Amino acid sequence: MRVAVDAMGGDYAPAEPVKGVLAAKEQLGKDDKIVLIGDEAILRQHLSGHEGWESFIEIEHAPDVVGMDEAPVEALRQKPNSSLARMAELAATGKVDAIVSAGNTGACVAACQMRLRRLHGVHRPGIAIIIPTFHGPVVLCDVGANVNCRPQHLHQYAIMSSEYLRCICGKDHARVGLLSIGEEDAKGNTLVKETRELMKGDTSIRFIGNVEGRDIFRGTCDVVVCEGFVGNVCLKLMEGLAEGLFKSMFQEMARTRPDLTAEFQSAIKSVKERFDFNEYGGAPLLGVNGICIICHGASSHRAIVNAIRVARESVNAKINDRIIDRIQQWQGSLHA
Amino acid sequence: MRVAVDAMGGDYAPAEPVKGVLAAKEQLGKDDKIVLIGDEAILRQHLSGHEGWESFIEIEHAPDVVGMDEAPVEALRQKPNSSLARMAELAATGKVDAIVSAGNTGACVAACQMRLRRLHGVHRPGIAIIIPTFHGPVVLCDVGANVNCRPQHLHQYAIMSSEYLRCICGKDHARVGLLSIGEEDAKGNTLVKETRELMKGDTSIRFIGNVEGRDIFRGTCDVVVCEGFVGNVCLKLMEGLAEGLFKSMFQEMARTRPDLTAEFQSAIKSVKERFDFNEYGGAPLLGVNGICIICHGASSHRAIVNAIRVARESVNAKINDRIIDRIQQWQGSLHA
Repeated sequence: MRVAVDAMGGDYAPAEPVKGVLAAKEQLGKDDKIVLIGDEAILRQHLSGHEGWESFIEIEHAPDVVGMDEAPVEALRQKPNSSLARMAELAATGKVDAIVSAGNTGACVAACQMRLRRLHGVHRPGIAIIIPTFHGPVVLCDVGANVNCRPQHLHQYAIMSSEYLRCICGKDHARVGLLSIGEEDAKGNTLVKETRELMKGDTSIRFIGNVEGRDIFRGTCDVVVCEGFVGNVCLKLMEGLAEGLFKSMFQEMARTRPDLTAEFQSAIKSVKERFDFNEYGGAPLLGVNGICIICHGASSHRAIVNAIRVARESVNAKINDRIIDRIQQWQGSLHA
Repeated sequence: MRVAVDAMGGDYAPAEPVKGVLAAKEQLGKDDKIVLIGDEAILRQHLSGHEGWESFIEIEHAPDVVGMDEAPVEALRQKPNSSLARMAELAATGKVDAIVSAGNTGACVAACQMRLRRLHGVHRPGIAIIIPTFHGPVVLCDVGANVNCRPQHLHQYAIMSSEYLRCICGKDHARVGLLSIGEEDAKGNTLVKETRELMKGDTSIRFIGNVEGRDIFRGTCDVVVCEGFVGNVCLKLMEGLAEGLFKSMFQEMARTRPDLTAEFQSAIKSVKERFDFNEYGGAPLLGVNGICIICHGASSHRAIVNAIRVARESVNAKINDRIIDRIQQWQGSLHA
């Protein structure tokens, strides 16, 4: 298997992606290779001194970089030799089996849409993140690929996310909730009401109805679908609130019991690690004809290691074949 | 001043609302009265034994109750003698200066829209909550009154929330952010892009541009506007995540250092209280021709006490006159 890693993407590129790729060696089989994409001279500099990297890393030269805040489509057009554009190219031409990037999310989605195209039958790709909760992992999809969703898109996110949870977390029959503002049929906006009717008609997913934001943390469901705008707002909100609460907690503890600072710090650190995006390794862009794992911009090398693992597991589980099958089944049932 | 309190609204009605009203006595002036609305026999039973309640509480008999999950408009039509319908009636006829309810939020909004009508010039009312953060209070509006927002609605939420922050928290020149999925102009959905252009043109608000969910907790802005669907999802998500994190934190601490359980518990409790919705006392429905404070369904008596305080402060600050002035100024500037 060959996994391409965008060495130039993310706030700490290329240092952390390179470090992550080096650390990923132990998960690789003897025929597995990592294709590291970026400016060759810079990458050789970062790799030098790490003995034996040539045995599992190939460098793919790409002199340009798409900046984290550049407008996606324009940037890709202007920079055909950027690491992101080259990465999508390698995947589209079958030279790699999966791709991983912590770069500009919008540009990564656009590159995959343009070069990899969509899986047969899929209307729109969606980014699925795993939220670690007290009651187990919950998949939230979409968190930013598609800000103009239609009911069919959300329905397919439910199908694809259920398959993802099955392949990556070994969880069958995922309970699917539709993110809304109340559990009753009458609540929500037009998109939610129409999606609800559509999903009720698909017995192949285990649809439990509308859920609210708090249900994500209460063990009510395993998959939550929503449109990309709402999902992305949720993602950033969770990040900000958790950061704020941990900070408040620590300050309060340090204020009331300065003698116990070390003990508090260690307990907080341990909970923080459980909620750390670096630990669960990137979010797949589900629905494109390939395996693409998108990492948080602030990814550390650990996040890259975990993303490579998720990429490899997705390839091994043939997740895209399963998604195509399930979408065909649904379409078949409509014409039956 | 006369403040009406819905004794039958909320998960713990009538016990907690009645307890809250009794506890609110100390904030009242000698001419102030609370009008407690609900089934008279039940309320007298709850009040009996509390000496002197007659000096500041009047009972308004309303035998019916709108359930927490009833469809708002239908319930109000079918139950003209419900506490919510009677409460709106009292406000509409000028018999009370402000109203407070922890009942069915949708029904409360609908009752106010139907009976109180909108303030002159206001397109749609919005519910504004105060989020206590590490960097001070942040107002989020709308959190559920209006799920089909137009740019003009969000712009007016910015104006109304800025006035609210000025009146209630004494904060002038509130920095206003527009909730989106990235700071750049190009990001967001159509509503965000159109609202951004509209708000840029209004120099009377201190508009800082798009903000992301995490900015709420980073001291970037004082007011965040969004459509009611997104705001309500955020509200519930914050509730669920905070609950989940506190639980995880405590379990982790108890596991690693069982000997320090009491110390951990006390520090967590103190942070929890700072983030507790009961402490900041209800959310105003801004934009209706009256003062209406909506409380969380799970409100304790403390939340009711605080909501009565916010209601009184809003009346004293003549917040609605200020909102009308500012909206007239804006409309005047359009024709200038």
